[in-house]
Parts: sequence; C-alpha cells; structure tokens
Amino acid sequence: MDIKKGPQAFSRTEYLRRLAAAKSQMEQRDLDALVITEGANITYLSGYTARSPNDPKGMVVSAQQEEPTFILRKMDVPAALHQTFLERDKVVEYPEALMGDPGTNGYDALIDFLVDVGLANRGLGLELGSLSMRSAQKFMARLPQARIVDCTDVITWIRMVKSDPEISFMKEAAAISDAGVMRAAEVIRPGMREADAIAEILATLARGANGKPGTWTATPFLCSSPRTGTSHITWSEDVFHGDSQVNLEIAGVRHGYTAPISRTFSIGRASERLRRVHDAQLAGLEAALDTIRAGCTCSDVARAVHRTLEARGIKKESRCGYPVGIDWMERTASLKEGDMTVLKPNMTFHLHLGNWMIDEDFGYVISETFRVTESGVEVLTSAPRKIFELT
Amino acid sequence: MDIKKGPQAFSRTEYLRRLAAAKSQMEQRDLDALVITEGANITYLSGYTARSPNDPKGMVVSAQQEEPTFILRKMDVPAALHQTFLERDKVVEYPEALMGDPGTNGYDALIDFLVDVGLANRGLGLELGSLSMRSAQKFMARLPQARIVDCTDVITWIRMVKSDPEISFMKEAAAISDAGVMRAAEVIRPGMREADAIAEILATLARGANGKPGTWTATPFLCSSPRTGTSHITWSEDVFHGDSQVNLEIAGVRHGYTAPISRTFSIGRASERLRRVHDAQLAGLEAALDTIRAGCTCSDVARAVHRTLEARGIKKESRCGYPVGIDWMERTASLKEGDMTVLKPNMTFHLHLGNWMIDEDFGYVISETFRVTESGVEVLTSAPRKIFELT
Repeated sequence: MDIKKGPQAFSRTEYLRRLAAAKSQMEQRDLDALVITEGANITYLSGYTARSPNDPKGMVVSAQQEEPTFILRKMDVPAALHQTFLERDKVVEYPEALMGDPGTNGYDALIDFLVDVGLANRGLGLELGSLSMRSAQKFMARLPQARIVDCTDVITWIRMVKSDPEISFMKEAAAISDAGVMRAAEVIRPGMREADAIAEILATLARGANGKPGTWTATPFLCSSPRTGTSHITWSEDVFHGDSQVNLEIAGVRHGYTAPISRTFSIGRASERLRRVHDAQLAGLEAALDTIRAGCTCSDVARAVHRTLEARGIKKESRCGYPVGIDWMERTASLKEGDMTVLKPNMTFHLHLGNWMIDEDFGYVISETFRVTESGVEVLTSAPRKIFELT
Repeated sequence: MDIKKGPQAFSRTEYLRRLAAAKSQMEQRDLDALVITEGANITYLSGYTARSPNDPKGMVVSAQQEEPTFILRKMDVPAALHQTFLERDKVVEYPEALMGDPGTNGYDALIDFLVDVGLANRGLGLELGSLSMRSAQKFMARLPQARIVDCTDVITWIRMVKSDPEISFMKEAAAISDAGVMRAAEVIRPGMREADAIAEILATLARGANGKPGTWTATPFLCSSPRTGTSHITWSEDVFHGDSQVNLEIAGVRHGYTAPISRTFSIGRASERLRRVHDAQLAGLEAALDTIRAGCTCSDVARAVHRTLEARGIKKESRCGYPVGIDWMERTASLKEGDMTVLKPNMTFHLHLGNWMIDEDFGYVISETFRVTESGVEVLTSAPRKIFELT
C-alpha cells in the first residue's frame, strides 16, 4: 500500500517561500536549475530529515517547476514520501544496484534526470563546496554542454534569516538544551563515569522539554579535567574526581533545528583562576549581547567581546560564534573581527565565549543561542550563566 | 602546562603496523606522501576520535618519516596531543583566524607544510573521493609541480582486515548493541513516545556493557508503524500503539569501532505476514552465515541469501551488507552478487537482512555484525534472532 504523508513540520506555503528565495538567487545567476546535494539544504527545502549520509542523493530545483524533484535510492523513497511536502511524482528513485558500485552511482541517476528533462545544456548550479571531487567531475564529464556555476552555500545564506515558524522550533530546541544543562548539574558527581553522565544528558535531549521531544541528539562534547583545554572530545572513559572541572557543550534539536549551549561545571568550589576566567568571559558575552541589534555587523559583536576580554587580561583567539540552524553550524558568516556581514532580524547565532587556549591543559566554556531582533537580541537558551558548582 | 597523553586505545606498535601497510601502498604507487583527510582514516592512523567534521584537517604520511604529521586548527591541538600516539612535534596547528574564512583555510596550512618539507614537487596521494571539489582544486592549484594520485579508500581497504585488538573493541561494541536491543524490549510499550524509548536506548548505548562504556552513540534508526517501510528515519514524535511494529537499528561504539544490529519488535502478537517475512529473512541470514568462510566471495554470500529468499517467494533488492569498523560503514566491498571481493579472516561485516521494499508501508529488519574466520564465521552480536513480541 502507498505510504501516507506524516505530520509536516512546516506548511507548504513555507516551503514555497523558501523555494521562491532559491529561484530568485537562480535568476540572478541566470540558472535554469539548482542541484542541491548538501543534507541540511535538502532538509530546508523539503522537510526530509532521515539520515543516510553516505548515499548520493540530490534535489533539483527547476525554474520552470513549482516543486523540486528529489532523487534518492529506492530504499529511502518511502521516507521521502512520508516526511516531505513533495508530491509523489517529485520523488524519484534510483535502483539499489547502484549502491556500493565504484563506477556508476546515484549521481548518474540524477544526471540522467537532468538530461531527461532537458536541462543538460542549460545553466546549472552545483554545490561544489560539498560535492566531492570525484562526484563533481562526474557532473562535468557527463554534462559537457551545461554551463555549470558553483552555488556552494547559496541556500545556506538564505537559511540564515529564519521565519517565525523556524524560530519557534529554535526556541523549543533551546528549551531542550537548557534541560540538558540542568540535568547535567543534577547528576554529575565524583566517582561517576563520564559515560553515565552522558547517558542522562542524552536521555534528556531525546525526551525534550515542555512536551516537545528532541527529534535528534546532536553530538555532545564533555571535556573534563585533565582535558578542559581540549575541544570537540565527546567524552572519555574516565570517572569524575572530587575536584574535576567539566566543560559541557550540548544542543537540543527540533526537526533539524539546533540550539547549542555551553556551560562549565566544577565539582567542589571553583578555583580562583576559573572564577577569574568565568567573570571575564561572562562580561565578554554580555558585551556582545549589549551590542547585537539589526544593522550592526558580525565584526562589531566580536570587537565588543575582544575589548572586554582584553581589559581583563584575557586573549580569545577563536571566533566568537557562528550562525546556527539546521544541523548546528551554518557555514556562512562568523562572529569575528573583519566579518562585515550585517545582522538582520531573525538571524540566529551560537555566541560562543568558550576559550580553550588559555593554557594547553586549561579551558572554559560558556555560550548561548540568540536571535537578532530589530532593536536588540533575544537569547533563546536560558540556563543560569554561572559556573555550576556541584557539591 | 602541557597536556598529558591520555590512555591509548592501541599500542604504538599497532599504529606503526597500520602505517607500514599504508607506506607499502604508497610504494606500489610510487608516492612520497599520502594526505589523509577522511575522518575515519585519521582515527585509524592515530587514535584521534574528537569530532569537528566541518574544519579542514589532514594527516601527512611521509615515506621518509616513521610517524605521520597531523595538521589541524589550534583549538583542536590539545585533543590531538592527548588522544593520539603522535609525538608533540608531529601535531601542527594552524591559526584560528583561518576558521570561517571563505578564501584561505586550513588546507592552505596543510599545503604550506607540504611545501616546507620539500614534498611540493613529489608524488602525492589525495583522497579525492571525500575531498570537496573546491578543496581538491586548492591542492592542484597550489602544488602544480606535484604528481597527484587519487588514493580514495586506499586506507579504507587496509582497514577492512582487523587486528586482534580491533576485534576486541568490535566485540565490546557488539555487546553494547545487544544491551540496546534488550533495553528496547524492556521499555517499548503502547502509549509510550518513540522519543522516550530512544532516550532509554541511547542511555544504554552510552553506559555500555560489561563495564565498558560506549565511547560514542551512533545514529539510531527507529521506524515504527506506519513507517516500517521506511529506512533511515531516526524516530518520530508519535507514540507506540497497541499493534505497532517497530524496526530498530542501533550500534554500540568503542573507540570508533561500531557493531550494528537490527531487530524487529511487535507490540502484541506478530501478524501472519510479519512472521512469514521474518522466517524467510532469518533463513536468508542463516544461509549467509553457513556460506561465510575465508576464501569465499561477497558474491557467494549474497547468492546464498537470494537463493533462500527466492525459494520462499521474497525478493530483496538492497545489498545484503557491507564492511563495518570505524564510524559504521567502510566504503569498500558490498555483500552483493557480482562483488568478487574475497573474504579474509578478521574482516568484519554488517550482514543486513532488512527488507524495506516488500511494500511501501511494510518492511522488516534483522541484522548481525560478524567476523570472518579461517573456517567460517563468528557472529559478534548475540541478541535473540526473533521477532520481539511485547505484551
């Protein structure tokens, strides 16, 4: 029997608005079609959130068609029919025999589709920043008459300004992130394995908050003593000690929308050094929040942070944050000096005052997810901005 | 203060053995260096398991040097020093200012390194199958004198045959997978949200089994009625019903090593149709296991499956499995007809008798992770091979 459509995260009108923005970018570049292969951009344009990152799949946005066409392996077609707003004839399968074939693969099926619908000799946008060299060469070799234009991050830039329904999901995700932080504060104690704390945190991220379950659990990062100077370690096999410091970075997720938060925990009283760093980084975070409003630049925000930290004798080398949305980071602007991207209402960022380079074996984290408003900022995450001292 | 080395998952001897295998492949291709950018291959050659998938990073294996050199962003250097077997001078940082820069990025730092050590006009292997078009072009433009050879999956093929210490981790991971299945059987009940079941499963995958915690939680897939015909949906916002079927695919992870398992659950008695499909797919799985031994081919295994299923009137279009190891799937062979890869002792595979294409709204899953032995097979996962009927 045919699979039925599942509940849709967004209305058809919302998807058509996003597609209209994509088509406007295509028109500016004189393109007849845009081939979307980046997973988060496929999610954005269709609602597809199933995960099979290794399989070729792609979406063709045609200037002539209201809906895009989604080409993917046969096994994944029912999920696409169920999850996305797309009409049945806009989901096109390629045979399972192409899986694990070193020569012909799913991109050949996508190229066949482009040929079949008369796009082989037209202006085609490709996401060359994420398409592998081999795959990109396949498009070029098989479509020699096409005028291929690199459209990496064209959709990602559109994604930067959220609609109100997207902001609602970001808020729900942020509430889940807060719940994860509060759960960490409840459970972390000396003698506990890091993995057992992560178990409780992941369970909270899945259960969600306010009756809204997490729809995914993003990678948690837990870097505890003697690893507080490291970033991006997920967790270790260690147990917490009586004087452990724990740097935690987690994110709730709702329908792809991800709202990260970081907080630092201290088992027992925080050291003088940790307090001094916390006070400085918190002041930097607040200086950033005081600066943010529609019309200011990413660079302005970073400068406010650096001025504040330098006055307190602290250097922060890494950028102060980046846009967030579907699947955590959007690869567009950065909150760093020199980035002249102008903030607009409903852009969302992960403002990260983490500092891992204070010393090789000492770092600290604090971060929030915020939304730009006309007159300022709305911080979506809301766990207390303190060192969580666990006794 | 300098960060200390953490406990190492493998001995230095083990890493040098892997590097010797890499250098042997380089010699066959007359290469002076191999540039590794694929995350799982970096893990394999160094022990690095921290996660920052969006940042350029790379490892240079030089024919002239015992240890490779690992080039990554400054923020991630302490984690590399802590987690890997590499000497301090083999971990090279690039400045944080390169993050989020649309022009120059971390690959420029890697190319600078190649130039500095005199490799700019030599034979260089690159992983073009995973390097993006833009990044690959950067290497080619900046190293015009180099003889660049595509070495995609060269390391992945080496990874296919595991050492005994790797098999030990696969077994520990498999025990965690089993625990996840048994936990699912305990908690799934009518009226429960799928997210609440996932919370319990993820917590189990983190806590681990036999005193060995999970060191990561791979993507779980939970496709329940009316979505049993879909694959790769993580979970939904639904609750289970009195007659729900639940297709679950999960994997425990130990130090990157991943041992997937799939089982099907039925709330209440399984339907006749589900039983019939289960019996057939189970027979197919057992026929595969009876066939597997060192010396037979992937194709032989798939043929045994298809012959068994066809005798029972069932068609399976998707391949019957793939090699597994670090980060789940290894992109090398496939258990499918026509794949003449010869099985060797200590190759590990995910044998997947899932079948999602029986009907668009009806599918079934069962799978095991196995190791090839000289005379047969050792199945690493061990949850009962049944439909879990939950009453």
